[in-house]
Amino acid sequence: MRRPSERTEPVPEATSHRLSLLLRSLRGLESAGVHTASSFEIAARYGLNSAQIRKDLAQFGEFGVRGLGYRVHELKAALKALMGLDRTRVLGIAGAGNLGQALADSRNFNAEGFRVAALFDLDGRKIGGRSRTGVPIRDISTLEEAVRELGIEIGIIAVPAEGALPIAQRMAAAGIGALLNFAPVTVPALPGLLVKNVDLTFFLENLSFQLAVTKA
Amino acid sequence: MRRPSERTEPVPEATSHRLSLLLRSLRGLESAGVHTASSFEIAARYGLNSAQIRKDLAQFGEFGVRGLGYRVHELKAALKALMGLDRTRVLGIAGAGNLGQALADSRNFNAEGFRVAALFDLDGRKIGGRSRTGVPIRDISTLEEAVRELGIEIGIIAVPAEGALPIAQRMAAAGIGALLNFAPVTVPALPGLLVKNVDLTFFLENLSFQLAVTKA
Repeated sequence: MRRPSERTEPVPEATSHRLSLLLRSLRGLESAGVHTASSFEIAARYGLNSAQIRKDLAQFGEFGVRGLGYRVHELKAALKALMGLDRTRVLGIAGAGNLGQALADSRNFNAEGFRVAALFDLDGRKIGGRSRTGVPIRDISTLEEAVRELGIEIGIIAVPAEGALPIAQRMAAAGIGALLNFAPVTVPALPGLLVKNVDLTFFLENLSFQLAVTKA
Repeated sequence: MRRPSERTEPVPEATSHRLSLLLRSLRGLESAGVHTASSFEIAARYGLNSAQIRKDLAQFGEFGVRGLGYRVHELKAALKALMGLDRTRVLGIAGAGNLGQALADSRNFNAEGFRVAALFDLDGRKIGGRSRTGVPIRDISTLEEAVRELGIEIGIIAVPAEGALPIAQRMAAAGIGALLNFAPVTVPALPGLLVKNVDLTFFLENLSFQLAVTKA
């Protein structure tokens, strides 16, 4: 099996999304006590295309056993390793307003593979407190030392637009490798920092478009 | 030009996303005082592929003028009409917790084409109050009458997992046409209701994958 590190191209988002769905399907099959499954069975759970799934997996190595299908547990473990999810990645959230606290407490951000270690804010009334589920709120001026101390690998930005870029730059300088930006401004990729800008307007525009097409 | 309503297939999400970027590009060109632009110029702003953009637009009608390129204002107006963004769509948010209030106050949800008219909750301490930017919080038991009264077309779900499906069903029954679900559970499409489930775990898994591939 080729190691992911031998790949030089970034993984296309669509591939990553399919592999996330595939991982969910494998978790579901494993929970249901299924030991081996065909690509059709694995694909069916999330409406995936089984030929596409075989093609995706073939890019990363040999996972199938001819005539038997895929060993569910083995494929799941390999997929988690491939996606860097075979350990817990520590998250730090800049901005302890409504959005930051909602993310800190969300099931999505504390699911298998992820854990929110701290919120950061500059409001003295919030610093020293905790979110509803107990995530500590630290002074944003201590961001750099907290990154080292807590081993934060992924930063989340939930501050107003004007604060996003300066904080992204501080996160990159502190050694954070990836960033999810919720501020309503596009943060560019910085040296050593992967950036994913989340713009919820796209979802609304998509729904509006579908409404116009299906109900016009 | 064909009317969108003549199309029967739902619009692929990737197409919708490209057209959203295209709309942003056209807004930018218009703000810069540009009257006509080639597909290359329009595509360049957001790293789009100009051949793909021409293909997308050709699906929906004849927008270009041979030898001249595209008339920016005209194309923008046609694109907004195509995507149902030529008027303001009214949003209602179920759940006035941290996430619901963050969304109600967000620039993304009150951008050109969208307006949050109300939050809904069952907590008596919140009902009758307002979000930071002034969005009123109503009793969720009055959802159906508020949908009619305020003309809510798109519902947002920001409640705990167990409340999501019952509220989606009430929204569908009340005549809401589309739903954006942030609860950590998948809401199925219901008769007459388009559903987009937003799962932020995908973004984190994508970043983890990219980190594994580029930095392993």
